[in-house]
Parts: sequence; structure tokens; C-alpha cells
Amino acid sequence: MTDERIGVIMETYEAFIGRVKDIHRLGALQGHLGWDQETIMPAKGSDARSDILSWLAAESHSRLTDPAMGHLISELERNESLDDDQRSNVREMRRSYDKAVKLPAEFVAAFAKAKSEALLAWQKARANSNFSEFQPHLEQLVGMTKQKIAYFGGEGQPYDVLLDEFEVGMKVTDYDPLFEGLRARLVPLLHKIQVAQHERPDPILPESLRFSIPAQTAFCSHVASKMGFDFDAGRMDASTHPFSAGLWPGDTRFTTRFDERDPFSCLYAVMHETGHALYEQGLSKGHSMTPRGDAVSLGVHESQSRFWENQVGRTPAFWKAVLPSFQEQFPDAPDWDAATLNRIANTVSTGFIRVEADEVTYNLHVMLRYEIEKKIFNENLPIEQLPETWNAMFEEWFGVQVPHDGVGCLQDIHWSMGAFGYFPTYTLGNLYAAQLLESMSDDLGDLDTLIATGDWSSMLQWLRPRIHEQGSKHTPAELIELATGSPPSPEPFLRYVEEKYGSLYGLE
Amino acid sequence: MTDERIGVIMETYEAFIGRVKDIHRLGALQGHLGWDQETIMPAKGSDARSDILSWLAAESHSRLTDPAMGHLISELERNESLDDDQRSNVREMRRSYDKAVKLPAEFVAAFAKAKSEALLAWQKARANSNFSEFQPHLEQLVGMTKQKIAYFGGEGQPYDVLLDEFEVGMKVTDYDPLFEGLRARLVPLLHKIQVAQHERPDPILPESLRFSIPAQTAFCSHVASKMGFDFDAGRMDASTHPFSAGLWPGDTRFTTRFDERDPFSCLYAVMHETGHALYEQGLSKGHSMTPRGDAVSLGVHESQSRFWENQVGRTPAFWKAVLPSFQEQFPDAPDWDAATLNRIANTVSTGFIRVEADEVTYNLHVMLRYEIEKKIFNENLPIEQLPETWNAMFEEWFGVQVPHDGVGCLQDIHWSMGAFGYFPTYTLGNLYAAQLLESMSDDLGDLDTLIATGDWSSMLQWLRPRIHEQGSKHTPAELIELATGSPPSPEPFLRYVEEKYGSLYGLE
Repeated sequence: MTDERIGVIMETYEAFIGRVKDIHRLGALQGHLGWDQETIMPAKGSDARSDILSWLAAESHSRLTDPAMGHLISELERNESLDDDQRSNVREMRRSYDKAVKLPAEFVAAFAKAKSEALLAWQKARANSNFSEFQPHLEQLVGMTKQKIAYFGGEGQPYDVLLDEFEVGMKVTDYDPLFEGLRARLVPLLHKIQVAQHERPDPILPESLRFSIPAQTAFCSHVASKMGFDFDAGRMDASTHPFSAGLWPGDTRFTTRFDERDPFSCLYAVMHETGHALYEQGLSKGHSMTPRGDAVSLGVHESQSRFWENQVGRTPAFWKAVLPSFQEQFPDAPDWDAATLNRIANTVSTGFIRVEADEVTYNLHVMLRYEIEKKIFNENLPIEQLPETWNAMFEEWFGVQVPHDGVGCLQDIHWSMGAFGYFPTYTLGNLYAAQLLESMSDDLGDLDTLIATGDWSSMLQWLRPRIHEQGSKHTPAELIELATGSPPSPEPFLRYVEEKYGSLYGLE
Repeated sequence: MTDERIGVIMETYEAFIGRVKDIHRLGALQGHLGWDQETIMPAKGSDARSDILSWLAAESHSRLTDPAMGHLISELERNESLDDDQRSNVREMRRSYDKAVKLPAEFVAAFAKAKSEALLAWQKARANSNFSEFQPHLEQLVGMTKQKIAYFGGEGQPYDVLLDEFEVGMKVTDYDPLFEGLRARLVPLLHKIQVAQHERPDPILPESLRFSIPAQTAFCSHVASKMGFDFDAGRMDASTHPFSAGLWPGDTRFTTRFDERDPFSCLYAVMHETGHALYEQGLSKGHSMTPRGDAVSLGVHESQSRFWENQVGRTPAFWKAVLPSFQEQFPDAPDWDAATLNRIANTVSTGFIRVEADEVTYNLHVMLRYEIEKKIFNENLPIEQLPETWNAMFEEWFGVQVPHDGVGCLQDIHWSMGAFGYFPTYTLGNLYAAQLLESMSDDLGDLDTLIATGDWSSMLQWLRPRIHEQGSKHTPAELIELATGSPPSPEPFLRYVEEKYGSLYGLE
């Protein structure tokens, strides 16, 4: 290729990347204002906040769907001289562009309006545990989502379109065997644990104990620092629902919540969100504000949070390492040893709520939602039958009856936001995490020994080049295979969970 | 006019106002990120923050200078059917547009760069009290500002162009007699006070006393609430330099600073910033994101802060009203009565620092800067002569020698930001505030009696329709005349300050 021709391509690439960065800047502004809204915004700021957030979304959409963007992408796709990083930016923008231009602007606006009304209706319906208040809104969102599937088109089953939106490349034919394999071994494991619990009840927190908020803040900040979170490049705050936000290079913020009667709730929220935040802090700064510098998927993001929360944080080794700090911050707590603390942190229960579930039941909660979404989009399940479908399946798998829809099919926010196809990424996160744990252990030796030392830097340093710095250079499945040497698989997770809970509950 | 013609004009106006709101949204985003940067941003977020702030500034500038905006303004100026509110939006946007298009984009970028370098150099120079480190940067900024004056053009003296930027309509021929009138009566008043202080020293805070930050926060929030600040529509936080930010309708934030040895520093910062914030909270929501819904000028803004800080807050009546709360929050403080607290809050001193000055010397500090700026831009004072000019003038007016430039000509941030012509608006604020106080008293009766009751709502209700809700409907001078029945004048301020300090220091 002549120097001149290369020069022209580089000019095209520069024009393209300038537009990409502008779109990312608009996204970062939305993220920042969203963080502010959830943490510190005064109540009466909500109208102005909605206005600016929709304005930013519209600005972003109009820049993404600008025909000039389409031309630049096509031109860059036609040539061979781009390097891998550049190619990944073109690939990711092609995907976003194609989706954005397929949806008419009026549809996008109408969908946004329907979602915001559904969210309010869902909040009331859940508070009243009254599905019928939410039903018409859910019917509308499902109808519009089916319309969206039609706009996107494509081969395969209708639900595949939604699954692909949240984890690129994943289809029903991928998830079905994976979930079936999990269910076949998790349901029997759960039943064995229930028998063991009947004979020897789990330890519980004494009712009268209180853990002060400043002490919880100090203890959890200490743990986040040990994990490697850089507080000069981020913040920890409080919000109703814990979350993590990448925001800007050098400024990653996460939140937690406080319950004076239960320090474990705050601790594991912090470890989970710090896991997400470490991924964001570890993304390649040289590629910031482009897809190459973005986290690759929800599933991989969740693998980072679950790795630290469960596979590091819910172990006797972890409790051995942090016991002195726990005792220093909570001098009034009973004289628990590491094993007892770990036991409390790993109680299995057949509660109704996904976000409170242990590692055994968590994926069953996810699977139930996956099966229902599949029925809705592939088999046209009438929405009025949603509660009975949910409740029957729950009783079959968990062995208990759902007392009311507030703790059943109304419990999660996702459907009221039109996020169908999102839930399965949570399970992918658990599977990826277990797979990473096995590979890491091959490289670093016995991880329990390492975690017990309290110096976890080698674990973060293992994740940095293999996951964090890769950004969106590869697809999620490629990334996991490159990092671990094997394609994504449920086996490492099943080995992990059977061994862990077998040992905890003294199963044979 | 035919209905059809009116329809066309309204369409033009809608197109215009849509663009105006977009520009305001970009401004509000800059304000929000600026607030975040000063209060809670982690240190390593600064590079990304600079990037997004310059990006927003460039976006805003390109929308303001879009030729389509010029056409819309011209078209709207040509017709008679707009109402007063609409006309004020067109008038204000004309002013912004004309200024923006007169400056070449390269000049704007070069000036921004020079300012950001000068700011860093000033910080170092002030810390080292070494003017020569700052001198080349100041010379460059002054040179570019002279260039800017040339771009703007216009009649009158060169310095007039700068004065008009910060307070529309004000010129050297307006300020000169006003400042001369002030100086003629303030300098003798200061000398009388100094004699009185020599005979009877001011009370001082005991060195060993400490006032806890939580107690200061509680006391100051209490005062801000009594002033009428709506904490559901705003926040109070901490920052190095206190400031107030209007941000969004329903979301106005101000900051303060804490010194455990001096609760007055925090209190008067809070009263000052709450005064600004009440103006922002009182702007007309129906006109938000347009000039009609913006505060009209720096001078009027400062009148609101100084009104509450000094004319309400530094009175015996105020201390009578808040004494129970003060005693509750600071039980270890001496058994001060309202008169003593007021005496401490009104100590006159010939300190070198403007921001710490009392009401007698404050305007002399401003005037000194005004005289120097006049010499720089109208008489081409060489910048190397700035320190000696400053120091000579200070000694003549205040009767003391400036020990080093750190507390002399290097003390303020303004010049390092290229903000020449800004200082005089502080004095306008003091004058407007005194004039408003007199008018308010005509309507509401004796204000000392009213302030002592602790119910200040009638004072806020008096300011709301006369100042806050007017936004930028009128020019600053028109607004003051409409609110008080008289054009702006220094007489009410001089009457106020002579009476107040005469009584405090027992002058004849």
C-alpha cells in the first residue's frame, strides 16, 4: 500500500474516532448524572435531571445514526491496514450503528416513554403486591419489544435477538444446555443442603447486635483498599441500591448500603461493586472513550464482581486475613473466629429474592427468569399467566410456595425497564468467575493460602492483563478462552460450588 | 398582523429558544462538573475532567456562533409582536452572539490555554510570594485582553469594554464618581475607627477554643434554613473556596469551609453563599434554561449575598434570634450575649486580604484593584510596575505597608483567570444591597425588630418578586430602580455603614 493511501485511511480513522469519542463523552455525562441522581441529588432536582438525561440520550442517538458515521464505518471495514485495536473499534461501532439505525426515532421515543411509565407502575404494583396494576404496562413493553425484535430481524429464535443485546454471541442454543446442566446438579445439591440444615441449623446474627455505620465504612474501605481499589481515582458512597459506575478515566465510583444490624450486607455489596470498579480502573487508559477501552460485556463485568465477592470474600481464608480489622472495628461483636464468620457469610436459604440468594440458589433464580422470558418471546406466553407460571416453577425447583407476587414475579426492576434478556448474564458471570479462579490457581498456586496472607495484589495483577486491559478487543467468549485456555463452560463452577458447599455442610 | 404571520414568528421564536436551551444545557453541565470537581472529585479525575470541560465549552461556542443563530436573532429583532420576556431573551442572546462571533476561534483557544497556564503559574508565585514568576503570564494575558478589546471594538475607553462584560452598561464614567464618593467618606471613617480601636481593643476569640465541625454544620444549616434555603432543592457541602452554583431548576448547591477555631468564618460563608443560592432558587422556573430565567448580573448576585451576610447576619438582632441555637451547638463557648457576638462578627481591621475584609475596608480593596486595572488598560501601566503601584496605593489608603506580594497584588485569583473588570461588581453588590435594605424597610417596617423575631420569611418574600423572579427581564440598573424607586446610588450604603460603625465604635 502506498504511503499516500495509508495517510487517507488514517485520516478516515481519525474522523471516525473523533465521532466515537464524542458519543462516549455523552455517555459518560449520562453516567455521571445518573450516579449523582442515585447518591446525592436533592429530591426536587428530578424533573431537570430527566430533561437533561433525555436530551443527552437524543444527542447521542443522533450522532450515532448520522449517515456520515455509517459511511466512515463502511470505508474502514473495506481496508486491511487497521490494527487489531482499531478493528475492534470499527466492529463495535458497526454493531451499535446497525442497531440504532434500524429503530425509527418515533419508536425509540415511544419506547422510552412506555418504560418510564412502566417503572412507576411497577414500583406501586410491587409495594401493593398487585400484579394487575403492572400487567397492562408489561403487556405494552413486551409488545414493543417484539416490535423491536422485528425491526432488528435476523435469523434464529426471536429471544436470541434480546440475548445477543446483553451478551454478544449468546443464543438460546447456547444457554439451554448450559442451564440444563446447572439445574441437573444444583437442585439435588440444594436438597442435600436442606436436609443437613434440618439436622444442624445455620448460625444467625444475634438480634440485639448493632454495627455502627462509621465502623462499617472503615472496615469496608479497608477491604476495598486491600482488593486494590485506588481511592485517589474513585469514591465509595451510599445509595439505596448499590452500583458501580466507570464514569471517567481516573474517576470510578461505587456505592453500598448500610444496615446497622447486618455488616455482611454492606461488606459483600462493597466487595461486589469493588470487583466491578477494579475492572473499570484497569481498563486501558490509552483507549479511553472508545469501545476498545470499554468493558466488553455484562457477563464479564459480573465475573469480576462475583470473583471478589464470593470466591475471595466468602472463604475461611478471607476471614482469616480480615479478622483483626473486623475485631478492631466491631469490638462489641461476639468472639467469632474466621470459620464462624465464614459460615454466617455462606448461609444457604431458599428465600424468594434473587439478590439475597446464596451461590447455590442464585443461578436457579436466574434460570427461572430465563425460562419465563423464553416462553414470553418464543412461545407467546400471555402476560396474564406470568404469576401462575412463575409460582409453579418456583415451587417445583425450590420446594416452597410463593406467598405473594411482591416476592415473586414483581421483585426485579429489569422488566419494568424493558430489559428482557439481561438476567442470563448474571449466571455467565458466575461461570466465568469460577473458570478464572481455576486458571489463576494453576498460575499462582493454592489461592486459599494466598488469600489468607492478606496480600491479594498478585490476583489483581493476574486479572489486569488477561481481562481488564483487554477491554473490548475480543468478544466475551474469545476473551475467556484466551484468559483461561478453554471456552466458557459450566464445569468449573459446578466443581467449585459442590466442593465448597459439600465441605461447609459436611455432605458426603 | 395576520394569524398566519404571527404563526411564522412563533415558529421562528420556538426554533430560536430551542437552540438557546441547548446552549444553557451545555452551560449547566459545565456548572455541574465544576461543582463536582471542587467538592468530591477524586484527584486522579482531573485530566478527564479538563477534557470534558473544554469539550463542552467548544460545543457551546460552536452552537452560539452558528450562523443560523445569527439569522434567527436578526429575524426576531425585526418584529414587534414579541412580549417583554421574549424580547429580553432576544436582547441577551444578541449580546452573547455578537461577542462570541467577534472572537476568532483560534484566539479563544489560545486565550484559554494562556489562562490555564497562568493559573498554575499564579498558584506557585503566590505560594512563593514571587511576582516575577507570574509577571510574564500576566503580561501575556493583558496583551491578549487588549487584543480582545480591539476585537470587540466600541466607543469609550478601552477599560469600558471589560467593565461592560461583567456588569452590562457600567463604564468608567459611571464608576469613577461612585468610587470617588465612597473613598472620600470611607477613608476618614476608617481612620476614626482606628483611633477608637487604639483606645478600646476589639474582643477576640480565645486561642484555645474549638468549635466542632458537626456542630458548625448543624448551626449553619439551621441559619440557612431560617433564611429560606430549600434543602429539598439543594445541598450544602464543603470546599476549599466557598461558592454557590445554580446548576438546575430544583437543584442549587453551595459550599462552605470549616475552621475549628473560628465558627464565624463558616457562618458568614454560609450566609453569603445562601444569599446567592436563594436568588437561584427564586428564579422563574417557567423561564428556566433561557436568559429570562437567569440571574441578571454579578453585581445583583452579589447584592443578594451581601444583604444576608452583612445586613442581616452582622447585626445584634440576628444574634438575638440565633443565640439559643448557637448556645445549644457550642455549649463550651463563653457565655457571650448577642451584643458581644455581634461585636466579634464586625471587627474592623486593616488586614491585607480583600476576602477577609470588613464592610468599611472591603470597598477600598475593590477600588484599589479598579484603579490599577484602569491604569493597565487605559494608561498602559507596564506590568513590572504593578507591585510598586499596588503597595504605594495601599499604604496611602490603609496606612500600613504591604510586607510581601503574596498578601498584595498576588492575593486574588481573578487576574490569573483573565477576569479583568470583575472586581467592581463586588462594590456594586454592596451598594445595591444597602439600597434594597432601605426600600425593604420602607415596606416592612423596622428590620431590626423583624430580624430579631427570627422569622425572616417576609424579607425573602419581598426580594422574590422584585429581584429573583425578574431574572434578566431588565438590565441591572433598571432592575434596581424598579425594585427601589431610585437609580443605583452610593448614598444608602454610606448612610448604612456610617451609622452602623458609628454606633459599634461609639464614634461621634
